Amino acid sequence: MKALTLLRYPEGAPRPEDFELVELADPVPGPGEVLVKVTHLSMDPLPRVRMQAKPVMGPPMRIGAPVEGRGVGRVIDSNDPTFAEGDMVLGELGWQGLAVLPGAKLTKVRGGQPHQHLGALGPTGFAAWFVVESLAPRGGETLLVAPAAGAVGSLVCQIAAARTADLQLVGTAIGAEQADYLDGIGVTPMAADADWPGPGGIDLFVDGVGGAFHDRMLAALNPRARVLLLGFVSAYGEEGPPRYGNAGAVLLKRARMEGFLLADHMTDTPAVEAARKQLAAWLEDGTVRPAERLHHGLASAAAAFSGLFTHSPPGKQIVELEDKA
Amino acid sequence: MKALTLLRYPEGAPRPEDFELVELADPVPGPGEVLVKVTHLSMDPLPRVRMQAKPVMGPPMRIGAPVEGRGVGRVIDSNDPTFAEGDMVLGELGWQGLAVLPGAKLTKVRGGQPHQHLGALGPTGFAAWFVVESLAPRGGETLLVAPAAGAVGSLVCQIAAARTADLQLVGTAIGAEQADYLDGIGVTPMAADADWPGPGGIDLFVDGVGGAFHDRMLAALNPRARVLLLGFVSAYGEEGPPRYGNAGAVLLKRARMEGFLLADHMTDTPAVEAARKQLAAWLEDGTVRPAERLHHGLASAAAAFSGLFTHSPPGKQIVELEDKA
Repeated sequence: MKALTLLRYPEGAPRPEDFELVELADPVPGPGEVLVKVTHLSMDPLPRVRMQAKPVMGPPMRIGAPVEGRGVGRVIDSNDPTFAEGDMVLGELGWQGLAVLPGAKLTKVRGGQPHQHLGALGPTGFAAWFVVESLAPRGGETLLVAPAAGAVGSLVCQIAAARTADLQLVGTAIGAEQADYLDGIGVTPMAADADWPGPGGIDLFVDGVGGAFHDRMLAALNPRARVLLLGFVSAYGEEGPPRYGNAGAVLLKRARMEGFLLADHMTDTPAVEAARKQLAAWLEDGTVRPAERLHHGLASAAAAFSGLFTHSPPGKQIVELEDKA
Repeated sequence: MKALTLLRYPEGAPRPEDFELVELADPVPGPGEVLVKVTHLSMDPLPRVRMQAKPVMGPPMRIGAPVEGRGVGRVIDSNDPTFAEGDMVLGELGWQGLAVLPGAKLTKVRGGQPHQHLGALGPTGFAAWFVVESLAPRGGETLLVAPAAGAVGSLVCQIAAARTADLQLVGTAIGAEQADYLDGIGVTPMAADADWPGPGGIDLFVDGVGGAFHDRMLAALNPRARVLLLGFVSAYGEEGPPRYGNAGAVLLKRARMEGFLLADHMTDTPAVEAARKQLAAWLEDGTVRPAERLHHGLASAAAAFSGLFTHSPPGKQIVELEDKA
């Protein structure tokens, strides 16, 4: 089978040449294990933090091994009675044609298109949902989302608008295609190197960017603003921990700043089920229209992943694998 | 009358030579104004942020004018029917022998010693109370207070212990006198240039220090830790906004970081009244034993204030004025 491996730890933003397409022996499932033909891979920025020699959120990814990442696929052989040939499953399949995992590490998915379970009906949708739940926006407030045109950000904007009327939405975009997209979903686009455009200040700030942008936006917070930290796209791969500098604003504005990780929320089964139902209904009636871009072939993951840190088409980036393993 | 004026904006920690004792004409109260003989001045670090040319939390303090600061005093003449000669009042009296203020800017105080209304029965006590209210410590948690031997910190430690059994308390101390003091009130002392001593991590962190200390302690947070920012003693007067660098910990530990200003809480009259009653009862029965140091004479404020940023005796620093205006 083909696999896309990590050739070296990227410096700063990952580049396609940090990865290498190789041929590996097909894996064989042991007792309790399931063999999955990978059909779609989810491109997510957070795994970047594990592409370094120092352990952060788990052990470093191994040089020369298939990149670790979330995907969906079809069961083609199973030593776990929970799964049968033909089942569609979600899990940490990795950037490879075939994956072997213990059944306990896989989730069966049903309905919709397979790739939707990586996007609006999967972890991306749940992340956006629980971000908005955590913020609890109120009418009349101004919400800044950064980045806004990406997979999670674009759903955060739409879910917030669906949930709370009279919300002013501002979001960062890179390039004209992202800006046009935001405009089309009712979000005022701004560049991440711009100053806060106003009018008025920021009540709610969903920040996946960090760095100097974070500091500048904190200076524009309204009193009692709420800030949710999702990641540090601007800082992945920098030496040392991601820094931010505007502590004075958190104190003087009596802001509340919190870190957000989806895993904390996924353990609350009733809340997850309620989210799934509401998201499915909104997708059905068109209230939420997820943007997604399918890239074709395992090799395309190198560029699609790198694009997350520079300039992607709007929405969720998904790699669809060729049918041959 | 005598006044202690700001001679220049301090660079870094204030020094006694940044202030100058001068002789000014006695002020005369106009319509609705009250003439107060200042008896005690409260030494607080926060006004330091206004001792710079750039406006922060209000306009810069004026060079050559009496330093602005909180105090208590005795009314000696009043054009406001609410106040009569002999009343003791609390307000922003300034570092001077006599102060004239509109009656609306003064609060009558009763009972206790006058200086206690600057300490445990006044804004210092309320600050400590609402800090603990905001944190809502639970039994078994570890609370780090920095600085811990100062006016607010020493009361935070005692109030937290009075409210919540089985709390592990750690606090920063400068020098042996502060360390001994903390030990005596059940707080494990540590130096602000030390690493987190453990065992275990930090659940609650009350931070008035900022800077590199803040960053190091964030690395020792437990998941879901709560951090309250009270100030930046380490950074007052540095160029630019106070910086802190460990945003990664806030995200990865899903910590909650909030800014705290007493003024937000003082508008909730029933909550303030409940705090006043409980604090008075704890002072009465010895549950809370406030530490305080009286400095004598207006001129001593220069050194007492400077000491807040370097090395003070434990507890609240109060300047008692000579009886002659």
